[in-house]
Amino acid sequence: MDRNGVTEGELEGRGMNKCVEQVSHLALDIGGSLIKMVYFCGENSGSEHQQGILSSKESCGLSNGNTNCSVLRGKLHFRKFETSKINECLEFMSSKQFHRNGEDCHGASVSEKNIIKATGGGAFKFADLFKEKLGMTLDKVDEMNSLVAGANFLLKAASLEAYTYMDGQKEYVQIDQNDLYPYLLVNIGSGVSMIKVDGDGKFERVSGTSVGGGTFWGLGKLLTKCKSFDELLGLSYSGNNRVIDMLVGDIYGGMDYSKIGLSSTAIASSFGKAVSEDKDLEEYKPEDVARSLLRMISNNIGQIAYLNALRFGLKRIFFGGFFIRGHAYTMDTISVGVNFWSNGEAKAMFLRHEGFLGALGAFMSHRKDGFADLKAHHLVEQVPTKPSRNAGGCLNNSSVLKDVNENISIECTMQLSN
Amino acid sequence: MDRNGVTEGELEGRGMNKCVEQVSHLALDIGGSLIKMVYFCGENSGSEHQQGILSSKESCGLSNGNTNCSVLRGKLHFRKFETSKINECLEFMSSKQFHRNGEDCHGASVSEKNIIKATGGGAFKFADLFKEKLGMTLDKVDEMNSLVAGANFLLKAASLEAYTYMDGQKEYVQIDQNDLYPYLLVNIGSGVSMIKVDGDGKFERVSGTSVGGGTFWGLGKLLTKCKSFDELLGLSYSGNNRVIDMLVGDIYGGMDYSKIGLSSTAIASSFGKAVSEDKDLEEYKPEDVARSLLRMISNNIGQIAYLNALRFGLKRIFFGGFFIRGHAYTMDTISVGVNFWSNGEAKAMFLRHEGFLGALGAFMSHRKDGFADLKAHHLVEQVPTKPSRNAGGCLNNSSVLKDVNENISIECTMQLSN
Repeated sequence: MDRNGVTEGELEGRGMNKCVEQVSHLALDIGGSLIKMVYFCGENSGSEHQQGILSSKESCGLSNGNTNCSVLRGKLHFRKFETSKINECLEFMSSKQFHRNGEDCHGASVSEKNIIKATGGGAFKFADLFKEKLGMTLDKVDEMNSLVAGANFLLKAASLEAYTYMDGQKEYVQIDQNDLYPYLLVNIGSGVSMIKVDGDGKFERVSGTSVGGGTFWGLGKLLTKCKSFDELLGLSYSGNNRVIDMLVGDIYGGMDYSKIGLSSTAIASSFGKAVSEDKDLEEYKPEDVARSLLRMISNNIGQIAYLNALRFGLKRIFFGGFFIRGHAYTMDTISVGVNFWSNGEAKAMFLRHEGFLGALGAFMSHRKDGFADLKAHHLVEQVPTKPSRNAGGCLNNSSVLKDVNENISIECTMQLSN
Repeated sequence: MDRNGVTEGELEGRGMNKCVEQVSHLALDIGGSLIKMVYFCGENSGSEHQQGILSSKESCGLSNGNTNCSVLRGKLHFRKFETSKINECLEFMSSKQFHRNGEDCHGASVSEKNIIKATGGGAFKFADLFKEKLGMTLDKVDEMNSLVAGANFLLKAASLEAYTYMDGQKEYVQIDQNDLYPYLLVNIGSGVSMIKVDGDGKFERVSGTSVGGGTFWGLGKLLTKCKSFDELLGLSYSGNNRVIDMLVGDIYGGMDYSKIGLSSTAIASSFGKAVSEDKDLEEYKPEDVARSLLRMISNNIGQIAYLNALRFGLKRIFFGGFFIRGHAYTMDTISVGVNFWSNGEAKAMFLRHEGFLGALGAFMSHRKDGFADLKAHHLVEQVPTKPSRNAGGCLNNSSVLKDVNENISIECTMQLSN
């Protein structure tokens, strides 16, 4: 039971239904393939909304002792759209009345409401569109800055956020705040950025690769005819990469090349078996193609990440970005790659809100003008529905995959700067 | 004019025609996709063949002063077959009578002729087949050992072997023998091996990637329906990768992301543009697909190679393996990748006999039992014929691409161990 006498589940239900007028503080990360959105939704509904603001005294108990402040409770929500369907994003924002209900919202004036923090290349590319369609100005926040700010926020503020994944075992990692830095942040969006993070706002983009989520999705679409990233990921669940990948054993007649530590089952050449087989694309199962592709890309990212971690002596590598999507096989391959190449010295870690680092970071940039501080309390997870398959064997847009981040809102208190 | 009063061209012609009975000392590198063959062919023909052996005095003038030896002049020839068409290799060997003309050949006894030095996984996989079809025993030589021995031989013995390639400029590099080691050898076969070489027989395989020549050929075949590696390479000549790759400018609305040094034309996501476009594979030109694929793989190898060179402080990286094939765009991309990631500190270098390092190394292992020493004098290059295209726009098996290594035989003197 919470302070208003309702259970968390009831509150969540009420919050979801009555969120329309209470949404404030929104940020976007407009990437090459996806638009990621983070928004804060006050806890109470309709006319009761003032109850969402705690008294100054209460609020200051929660924060830093400054009495000239108030605190708002609510949840951070996460949502994504495809960049090519940007109109869906505009419609969603319009339906939530982000662009004209400033005066109804806690802690955000009308003028503030007309300014949206935005990062990613699309913040430049689509600035005019937001102005024209919603009358909103995109306040551009640097992409790398945002990724780092988002990751730092999650790693410091949200418990049960970081975890390792290996051999089907998910293990949450409690991060010691005093031993967080330096770390390598690998953000796998359409492309991949690798950033050495030394502190709040202290970072350097040290590497990257163009072989990322856009490659998986783009090449996968061409190869399998799957219509979405989620379908393609779903497909790869049931595939067998050994059908198309050339293994060491395929070259060595079933033997290991043990002298250099390569087992017969190690992949010698991704897609290499297609060379010698007289088969067209249509004769391979899309599942197997998707699996080989996923493995090739995950492993490659794991390797380049490890080499960069090694270069700067970083023992911890956090992987974020929408490519991962909590997908077991992806994480497993990345983990195995990092483990293999580092001889067990380095560890791959993942973040539950992996896809929203940039959007969260852009959201946090409100701290300067929109709010004074934001504290995360705990995660609220919606149970996903069961995935279904379409006639072609592709997994339909399944909430298991699609909403893996979106289902987990973060209950927060926002200290307003008034 | 040479010492026998014929021009080099004439000699080459005679050698090629009358080679049948004179072939001795052969080695194979049987990889996942290709079989590479190196064989030595004595210079003189038929009944004159004893003229090929110089007198002891002459020979010892050419070698180390040991009078108990004779020297054979001739050429090292290079040839390749597809592993999936191994019968063509067996037929070629049968036609050259490698398996039964031992007594006709200089410096190789019948028993030696029935033993073939072989490296690569296929030396294990196909051992029984060679025994059954040709009555030959494959004497297995370690793959990494062979690559290193082959590279060291070429780098030390053959002039005009190593070169840099950038912006269409090919520049031969004279290697200082005293400053050759350490270097990184990157052999791009079906898969990729990266070997730190510290001296003759002193090396360590430090890294590798499964994204190699087999990936280009395998994936390329599935995507374009081209039937051979050469067709695919030919196709990529005329392609434009910007059609399918997502560039930084595509995300940033035509702008650079200058803060982190990424120009608007840098590839943000390989194949990333296919994500947002509602186009099937058939709607893309095979040329563009081939070009994007080549660029993705070349760039990735360049990056991983550079990171490994950096890790061990190696300033020189030699690229070998059949993936390169003297292909301008491939080399350019690798060079640019190494140059970009190293801020101009490291240099990519290529070898004219890039595809035959393993086979040459296996050949050199004859030194223990078949011959005492082999000295390379100069390269003899056959002028390639003009490429032609088939109806589908694919380049036909063109000697420009196909025979880029095969056309260059090496004139040698072989000091026999008698």
